[in-house]
Amino acid sequence: MSYTPPAPATRAAMLERVKFNADGLITAIAQQHDSGEVLMLAWMNAEALDETLRTGRVCYFSRSRNGLWRKGETSGQVQTLVDARLDCDRDAVLLLVDQKGVACHTGRRSCFYNALRPEGIVEITQPEVAAETLYGKG
Amino acid sequence: MSYTPPAPATRAAMLERVKFNADGLITAIAQQHDSGEVLMLAWMNAEALDETLRTGRVCYFSRSRNGLWRKGETSGQVQTLVDARLDCDRDAVLLLVDQKGVACHTGRRSCFYNALRPEGIVEITQPEVAAETLYGKG
Repeated sequence: MSYTPPAPATRAAMLERVKFNADGLITAIAQQHDSGEVLMLAWMNAEALDETLRTGRVCYFSRSRNGLWRKGETSGQVQTLVDARLDCDRDAVLLLVDQKGVACHTGRRSCFYNALRPEGIVEITQPEVAAETLYGKG
Repeated sequence: MSYTPPAPATRAAMLERVKFNADGLITAIAQQHDSGEVLMLAWMNAEALDETLRTGRVCYFSRSRNGLWRKGETSGQVQTLVDARLDCDRDAVLLLVDQKGVACHTGRRSCFYNALRPEGIVEITQPEVAAETLYGKG
């Protein structure tokens, strides 16, 4: 599948329909488009969503850094958009992506690696890449 | 797959590790365990997460009703838990579930049916059940 960006007027009309919260954000789920693996959950403001739809490269809003977070800008682990889908309330978006490498800053493919099991919290995957390698300190 | 609840002390230790936000909530993604379909996004407080882990039946926190929302209590469209996984920040949880019927209050299997396409917002699925049937008015 390849992504075709909507025209500027279409994107503007879409953004009008999105229900951003009091902080101007919506939740965004990234899912690997072919395997179905849920990779991560993050946030988007209108600018991040518009840039994502325009470029086909996923851009979030970092609440800790209070700015746009172009996924993979530092680590190289970019997410290419395949399809974006708003939910029934239009306050959450599911991003079907093609994840290059790993999604998680810990070096794991998915951020959801802490399983809540009878024996306690179990890490069900291990890092595939060292965080130092991802963030240029290695 | 069948779910085994952690013992009370184990659940209490898990809940200590979860990072609830200023409103006492975490985001929860429900995914059909076998097909990988992302069904919905909702919220949980500590009580909802604890009940879900204890009973194996998914319970959210409804922000609009300000109370526990036992999924399917009215509609019969229950979610049976298969596995629960916290993310790296421990402020979001991925619920692998077995969804009975449909997850969305519109009668669709998934809430994420509004695709953002070049031609605009496109509803890619149609309701399988009438909302009136789900909520007892039919």
